[in-house]
Amino acid sequence: MSGSEPERGFATDEYRRRLSALQARMNAADIGALLLTTEPDIQYVTGFLTRFWESPARPWFVVVPASGDPVAVIPSIGAALMAKTWIDDIRSWVSPDLTDDGVTLLADTISDLLPGSGRIGLPMGHETHLRMPVADFERLKAAVAPRTVVDATQIVRHVREVKSAAEIGKIRTACSIADRAFARVPGFAGAGRPLDCIFRDFQISCLQEGADRVGYLAGGAGPDGYDDVISPASPTLLKVGDILMLDTGVVHDGYYCDFDRNYAVGQPSDIARRSYGTLVAATEAGLAAARPGARASDLHRVMKEAIERAGCVPASGRFGHGLGIQLTEWPSLIPADQTVLRPGMVLTLEPGVSTTGGRIMVLEENIVVTETGCELLSTPAPAAMTVLQ
Amino acid sequence: MSGSEPERGFATDEYRRRLSALQARMNAADIGALLLTTEPDIQYVTGFLTRFWESPARPWFVVVPASGDPVAVIPSIGAALMAKTWIDDIRSWVSPDLTDDGVTLLADTISDLLPGSGRIGLPMGHETHLRMPVADFERLKAAVAPRTVVDATQIVRHVREVKSAAEIGKIRTACSIADRAFARVPGFAGAGRPLDCIFRDFQISCLQEGADRVGYLAGGAGPDGYDDVISPASPTLLKVGDILMLDTGVVHDGYYCDFDRNYAVGQPSDIARRSYGTLVAATEAGLAAARPGARASDLHRVMKEAIERAGCVPASGRFGHGLGIQLTEWPSLIPADQTVLRPGMVLTLEPGVSTTGGRIMVLEENIVVTETGCELLSTPAPAAMTVLQ
Repeated sequence: MSGSEPERGFATDEYRRRLSALQARMNAADIGALLLTTEPDIQYVTGFLTRFWESPARPWFVVVPASGDPVAVIPSIGAALMAKTWIDDIRSWVSPDLTDDGVTLLADTISDLLPGSGRIGLPMGHETHLRMPVADFERLKAAVAPRTVVDATQIVRHVREVKSAAEIGKIRTACSIADRAFARVPGFAGAGRPLDCIFRDFQISCLQEGADRVGYLAGGAGPDGYDDVISPASPTLLKVGDILMLDTGVVHDGYYCDFDRNYAVGQPSDIARRSYGTLVAATEAGLAAARPGARASDLHRVMKEAIERAGCVPASGRFGHGLGIQLTEWPSLIPADQTVLRPGMVLTLEPGVSTTGGRIMVLEENIVVTETGCELLSTPAPAAMTVLQ
Repeated sequence: MSGSEPERGFATDEYRRRLSALQARMNAADIGALLLTTEPDIQYVTGFLTRFWESPARPWFVVVPASGDPVAVIPSIGAALMAKTWIDDIRSWVSPDLTDDGVTLLADTISDLLPGSGRIGLPMGHETHLRMPVADFERLKAAVAPRTVVDATQIVRHVREVKSAAEIGKIRTACSIADRAFARVPGFAGAGRPLDCIFRDFQISCLQEGADRVGYLAGGAGPDGYDDVISPASPTLLKVGDILMLDTGVVHDGYYCDFDRNYAVGQPSDIARRSYGTLVAATEAGLAAARPGARASDLHRVMKEAIERAGCVPASGRFGHGLGIQLTEWPSLIPADQTVLRPGMVLTLEPGVSTTGGRIMVLEENIVVTETGCELLSTPAPAAMTVLQ
């Protein structure tokens, strides 16, 4: 993190750089205004940080013009907080309004910023959604006609994918918090302990180690692995022979980490030990391959090959993804994703193997692509699983 | 909670009742299939519970036919977990798929369930959004033509608004966890303590008291109140004369509570004391008015009148809302919302007053509408603010 960056939030220069990068691509694509509706996109452009997105009652909008500063069109309940960001032009209405929940104010704002006609960019592609009622979106399109709405996914994605030094610093902090929480797992997890208590103690550890919040926690336990990587806690007791996996996204100042750790309850079976060693080797292959110019698909390929070389069966699905304001961002480490890696991209490496009884094991690390290769943001998992009593 | 309900999740009968209620209204509205895409709607129909919704990478779908059981059309990463619910028909694909991320499988499923033509219901109205890329939704509409997509907000809303005894039990448990966490605040909050540490300790307390996770926390502090009710933690030190407000949504088994508590740092000013007493009186007026047949707007009116009678200035915005699987649900306690209250509706009462310097104070309780009136789910706030040292 550069010395001029504040401990919380970002200097206004950082937002200006983000804005310029968006506007350069908007102008190249003949997009006169960019409409943003989701938490990550609005946080990225404005710095607006709140957990209030948890409430679906109200829509929030930011319009980025092709030149000039962004305009926030938001419920009045958020105006005081938005006024603390670098955004000056804040237009608000008392929401919920059952007859017109910001649609006219948004249409008028778009008309101001894009007079006459033109193209409005909206993220409509992969990994996006529109956070406003579909019926209101239809009303909006009619209200801003003859302007048209076109897909702007690639514009937002291309800019957000490369993280600044300050963003990387925040992700690094999130990773270090999770590192310390994972190191405490042997203190509260072991045979006979219910998984839900372990999940709870892990979240407490993340907070005690400095997390603003625990944005994500999933995991599982079973002999030689687990059924999936997305399950919530259950009252099931951990037992000798289980492999326990915890996968977390702790949040620091609006940025996530996303990695997991595996623990053996008692001495692991040969299959579990070999699977784990294979996953470590696969992440090392991914680390060796991650550099500017490599493609997302290359990382998938080298990890898959490492698994096959070890005589194990690769799990299906992706082997990692982007990371930042969201727990998961573009690209996907899959054969079809030809995204070329650029310095500043933050990624997870997440190879998986099939073990026995339909179960899997996975291992995840967080990295940043540098000018010459990559750097780990998570402290790498140990070469052999930590054994719990 | 009925004795036959499991401690976690719900009996299959509960889901069958939900399904029947949805299908009765679907048939009355000539809707042949209901398409659900969001976490709360899918959780409601299937019992699918995971924090994996935090990842926006993959869309998830459930189709409810006009008769027969729901069909899950989901990424393969979720198939094992969905198979543990009562849903039998699970169709999955390996997602992310950059060329067809479930659209064809979903269109084929809709064609199976609604042969020929007909109307597909989708929540498109107030407080809803579509959790899939807009571009994929356009592809879907083309693929299922001549079937049309119509708004089904009222169908889903009408059914979800009334909670079963088992659902109320889970919300009550969430409330009791937050009650106990709020009672611990004097142990870690006081003059000189930074707000971010207080937010962190509060979340730890919620987890120690049994929360599955802390789904929401916002708050503020200042003389005679706070700037807003949605701000995240800051490093600002709490000081004598401040009113500290914490507003939380802790989650128990997929259900939220949502209420706040106010604390005075040292003895409160006359204005703060009077404002707080007014808020207590306003919630009591809301409690007295909440009964079947009363309207959402009635609750707003009686709370506003109680504030005005006390010579205080009501804050703008709504004075409460529905609560359940989401931190906030329909209805809104505002003048325009004519929703008639029904037994089983769970609501927050959340009056607010303007104090000094543009600041506000708010107080929130959680209630359930009964056959004859209402019942508190939160332990009511004390008549006078707890004083922190």
